[in-house]
Amino acid sequence: MRYAFGVDIGGTTVKLGLLTQDGNILDSWEIPTRTEDGGVNILPDIAASIRAKIAEKNLNDNDIAGVGVGAPGAVDDKGVVHQAVNLGWGRFSLKEELHAMVKLPVMAGNDANVAALGECWKGGGRGHKNMLMVTLGTGVGGGVIVNGKIVNGVTGSGGEIGHMHLVDGEEEACGCGNHGCFEQYASATGAVLLANRVLAASDKDSVLRHTEISAKNIFDAAKDGDELACEIAKQYGYYLGKGLALCASVLNPEVIVLGGGVSKCGSMLFDLLKPSFEEFVFKGCKDTPFALAELGNEAGICGAARMVIDP
Amino acid sequence: MRYAFGVDIGGTTVKLGLLTQDGNILDSWEIPTRTEDGGVNILPDIAASIRAKIAEKNLNDNDIAGVGVGAPGAVDDKGVVHQAVNLGWGRFSLKEELHAMVKLPVMAGNDANVAALGECWKGGGRGHKNMLMVTLGTGVGGGVIVNGKIVNGVTGSGGEIGHMHLVDGEEEACGCGNHGCFEQYASATGAVLLANRVLAASDKDSVLRHTEISAKNIFDAAKDGDELACEIAKQYGYYLGKGLALCASVLNPEVIVLGGGVSKCGSMLFDLLKPSFEEFVFKGCKDTPFALAELGNEAGICGAARMVIDP
Repeated sequence: MRYAFGVDIGGTTVKLGLLTQDGNILDSWEIPTRTEDGGVNILPDIAASIRAKIAEKNLNDNDIAGVGVGAPGAVDDKGVVHQAVNLGWGRFSLKEELHAMVKLPVMAGNDANVAALGECWKGGGRGHKNMLMVTLGTGVGGGVIVNGKIVNGVTGSGGEIGHMHLVDGEEEACGCGNHGCFEQYASATGAVLLANRVLAASDKDSVLRHTEISAKNIFDAAKDGDELACEIAKQYGYYLGKGLALCASVLNPEVIVLGGGVSKCGSMLFDLLKPSFEEFVFKGCKDTPFALAELGNEAGICGAARMVIDP
Repeated sequence: MRYAFGVDIGGTTVKLGLLTQDGNILDSWEIPTRTEDGGVNILPDIAASIRAKIAEKNLNDNDIAGVGVGAPGAVDDKGVVHQAVNLGWGRFSLKEELHAMVKLPVMAGNDANVAALGECWKGGGRGHKNMLMVTLGTGVGGGVIVNGKIVNGVTGSGGEIGHMHLVDGEEEACGCGNHGCFEQYASATGAVLLANRVLAASDKDSVLRHTEISAKNIFDAAKDGDELACEIAKQYGYYLGKGLALCASVLNPEVIVLGGGVSKCGSMLFDLLKPSFEEFVFKGCKDTPFALAELGNEAGICGAARMVIDP
């Protein structure tokens, strides 16, 4: 088993990679995600693209561990998708259907969970087997790795920490319909929400009153010492640290890895989150180390390949 | 491997069991826990008791999978105790020290986690491999089982959900030093705290004003329709459901098993916790089933034996 394919299905493109069993990416490429007609073309397109790559590289099927797939939806331990709204998918066995098409072993998981596995294998969590990864993007994605394996959850909702309840009395609804979810505060979108609240409650000037309010601009302004931006960043860190403290008290992970767009502001994030993390976490977990994700967009194909390399 | 020993170390007695590999308890007995002198006698006592039982039953070491041990403290994946205050223990390898004495394979875990494994194997969680157990006693103990194995955590604090932060602004401190921990509300002690607050805030009569305020009396009175007891039970259920919702959003378990003294009030507990559980949990986990623990005091020796039967 010298090779494995990793596939990361996004809403507009599918990223594919051919990896060695050690995790070196020999080739990576993309195909469009055809979401029309309930997404019926997505798997046949992936299978055709992989078979074409096998022919192009003159590979022997016996040298290929299989095809790992991350999909943006709920995927359980058996490789059954429960729902993937952005792809038009309802419930079906991704593992079995793709296997029938590509004639190779298939494993499947939720994209955030699969990216976490990638970071655990080759990125910010390497050297560890028990890890929590949190992706701070438009939403907050989570991935829990226990003993080197993804915690998928019985209905594929394992690691959905973005929808863990964090704040009582929130009036705005989360995209999930609940109120006060972790991702309402700790996502890039959440940073903007906090910014709007801080700016509305103050009449002080701020560079944020003269530019687009985005997570990047908020943290850049905070680094430059803008007073209101610092307050926003402090609030952001409070919620992020508190949410991670709740997770850590359940899992006591070896490391917590932060990824996604907001994590690009770097180690500043650790300083922002640590006061509330240490305030709220169980004492036995107080020294949990933090790390930044390292693989960027490649985390998905790495983690996906890992699923079939170490099934 | 026809047999295994399960050992459950408590603050006053050590429970021991001889089990078949299918989990039938052939014999069970107790010895005192000698906590004096930093607990140096505890492991030699256990080893001697097991060797005596092997001689008594005329067993062959080759037929014994080993000795599993649950201890009241933080125990990591490698069988290293980080601390067990009630036994006088600091940090040492329980697994290696007991192995040197008893000459059999040894596995060790935290007692609440080990009891959870027992319930997953033979009790309220049987048939499942991914389970959250919560023990509602003097405190709130938790145990997380993923893929049939305990999540010990890197410093042995895995499943310490009793110290997950739940309520902001709590003035009373938890035993751990934090404020607003799950166990301050959802333990038997927590039920009494809630009762005192409800009784103090009302001038209505209640049977609880004329009897000892205990979790049992509270739930008994609620079952009898006592108005203030019903209010206390409702509040208790609110906090219990909310805390379990946070855990379920991280783990998406197949089942949540409730054990410990408070769980003796039975399925009433499910009715009390479900409204807040469903309010706060991630939608994908809303249908998480609940079950009651079934093994009582035997959960510890069962789970301990399971650790060496399926290491």
